Amino acid sequence: MAAADKILKMMENSSWVRRMFETGAALKAEYGPENVYDFSIGNPNVDPPEEFFRVLSETAALREPGQHGYMPNAGYPGVRAAVAAEIARDQGVDPGVEGTLMTCGAGGGLNVALKTVLNPGDKVLVSTPYFVEYGFYVDNHGGVLEPVPGGPGFDLDLNALEARMDKTTAAVIINSPNNPTGKIYDEDTIGNLGALLERKSRELGRTIYLISDEPYRKIVFDGAVVPSVFRHYRNSFAVTSYSKDLSLPGERIGWLAIHPEAEDRKNLVSGAVLCNRILGYVNAPALMQRVVGRLQGHTVDIDLYRRKRDLLCRGLSEVGFRFDVPRGTFYLFPEAPGGDDLKAVDLLREERILTVPGRGFGAPGYFRISFCVDDAVIENSLAGFRRAFARMG
Amino acid sequence: MAAADKILKMMENSSWVRRMFETGAALKAEYGPENVYDFSIGNPNVDPPEEFFRVLSETAALREPGQHGYMPNAGYPGVRAAVAAEIARDQGVDPGVEGTLMTCGAGGGLNVALKTVLNPGDKVLVSTPYFVEYGFYVDNHGGVLEPVPGGPGFDLDLNALEARMDKTTAAVIINSPNNPTGKIYDEDTIGNLGALLERKSRELGRTIYLISDEPYRKIVFDGAVVPSVFRHYRNSFAVTSYSKDLSLPGERIGWLAIHPEAEDRKNLVSGAVLCNRILGYVNAPALMQRVVGRLQGHTVDIDLYRRKRDLLCRGLSEVGFRFDVPRGTFYLFPEAPGGDDLKAVDLLREERILTVPGRGFGAPGYFRISFCVDDAVIENSLAGFRRAFARMG
Repeated sequence: MAAADKILKMMENSSWVRRMFETGAALKAEYGPENVYDFSIGNPNVDPPEEFFRVLSETAALREPGQHGYMPNAGYPGVRAAVAAEIARDQGVDPGVEGTLMTCGAGGGLNVALKTVLNPGDKVLVSTPYFVEYGFYVDNHGGVLEPVPGGPGFDLDLNALEARMDKTTAAVIINSPNNPTGKIYDEDTIGNLGALLERKSRELGRTIYLISDEPYRKIVFDGAVVPSVFRHYRNSFAVTSYSKDLSLPGERIGWLAIHPEAEDRKNLVSGAVLCNRILGYVNAPALMQRVVGRLQGHTVDIDLYRRKRDLLCRGLSEVGFRFDVPRGTFYLFPEAPGGDDLKAVDLLREERILTVPGRGFGAPGYFRISFCVDDAVIENSLAGFRRAFARMG
Repeated sequence: MAAADKILKMMENSSWVRRMFETGAALKAEYGPENVYDFSIGNPNVDPPEEFFRVLSETAALREPGQHGYMPNAGYPGVRAAVAAEIARDQGVDPGVEGTLMTCGAGGGLNVALKTVLNPGDKVLVSTPYFVEYGFYVDNHGGVLEPVPGGPGFDLDLNALEARMDKTTAAVIINSPNNPTGKIYDEDTIGNLGALLERKSRELGRTIYLISDEPYRKIVFDGAVVPSVFRHYRNSFAVTSYSKDLSLPGERIGWLAIHPEAEDRKNLVSGAVLCNRILGYVNAPALMQRVVGRLQGHTVDIDLYRRKRDLLCRGLSEVGFRFDVPRGTFYLFPEAPGGDDLKAVDLLREERILTVPGRGFGAPGYFRISFCVDDAVIENSLAGFRRAFARMG
């Protein structure tokens, strides 16, 4: 025996997204990359904005002593101040420098938040469909993720969530705009969720935290607004990255913010800083902290994604696929005709179209299309979608 | 109750290094930074080499599509090939591209290695004195760190290590050149350790891994050579960062290599890649991967550290302190005169000299001086060392 038992088991059940990524690599090697329509992974194809390249070059050219050295584990105070000011502008609630930690992307921030609050065996609730990595992140820190079926239109089902809350419930994770559905929970829903968490925390005698994973917050269309969790519930963490809105997923840079009025906030903040350190992140990458600190308010050209969404939705709608038009993210989550998502994904793969089955997100019967690809990939794939659709029953 | 019980407890017992860091910040605010002699933290003061700045600027100016996007979780294959070739050159054993993973520094690499092999309750042995973060890293993954007293001259005590090995022992961590002692274990010691691990693994019916933490491998003086663990034991991981030898600790870039003949290597490699992903690192920072890939074989000017060591050792020796002259790292670990490390550190602090008590490394009776500081800090601190020494009893 070599690797740990749990790790061996996890490898067997490894994520569908990565499995499709590997299938894709094999298909591309066989047929050439231009003949494979890879909608399997959320790796943005839109370039970072011009401003990013300018600031990056300037920052790289600086020669201040110690600029690639350690800084406080929470990040540069100046960068955190700039981020906190942007959060205050965007959400109307200011977490302050103290409550804003720079992290190794949202993956890092979520692990820090979870380690900070989870006691062994604690439950974390999430509404389906959901980003499958949450299960690993919660397990990393001795917790158990409990998926709760979402309501109609992939909305939160607050009654179902309430029914699952008990004394072992440490947190609820939400992800809006949602991966894989593109759904944005509306202001009333978030308000009602906040009220529910307030009431259940009182009833159960333990604080249930709300952890809001928001990497797609700025990738929204048609004037959609993403409600702020901070406005509706004080015991909340907001986590995000610059992976999607600045197209920097490889650079591992994001932040974690803690509500300014969270209960026992001092310990939460110090705990998060400790966890950022002892999880081996130590701090978010120095150079990229400085870069994003200067790019608050900047994003990639969101309209490029809007155009891709429209192109894909129009094409697939004509073929006959059924789906909710996403108002955010770069994901579409259509029904698998006939209800069998594995079959749908298999038939699409025969057309060299790579997608991910909904069961990879806790929602069999659907499949996910990541449309952060060249427009030509969308256009050229439509004939294959049509042929596969005809065989889906 | 807010933060998890364990995290609250950890904060109470948080690391001495960080505690001194905070004390230092307060003293500097009161007396001005130029009047505080801060030897508390291993934040290199020597600038990265010129070549680093050249390569960084070139890499930052590149405009290849997707260059800040996701790559395989293990890192860019080209970068890993360059690193593997350097390991082969330096150590005579080639881990190959497959066996070389880019990580978020050595902290990231150690967490990945530990998560890959630890089953719940497993023990990990380490010789004292040791880098205190190991305790957190092992605990992160459900293991228990067991410090084993080192032998004379801070050498490994192989008999003591053997006596603590049982069926729950998953791994031994070594750190050579050592933080905090500067000790380099010699070729015979590593050879004997390898033979011991081979024999005990057979006797106990489980593989005991050797995890070699080597961030100071290239910071050595007087022609010292650091033996390669790969040459002496196949079930080994080597972990390092570019934090010290390129002075980039804030950038969180390093690597993890798995011996090419490790038992069940395929699962170890896949397990490590999975763990790098699910621990939330996802991948090492993209830009810095590309930069260090081009800087194999480069280091900061090591002679600057040699000079600082000589300056400090000469000065403290004249004062009367007793210590082994370190042949690597930028740490000195003198005896606390009178044997009370807390008292020694307190008396030094009264002279505005910041050091770390040996008990922070599992070795009371000593204290650590990080000499990665300006020569002037060393020179100007000597009078204070002399006054404090006189009061140490």
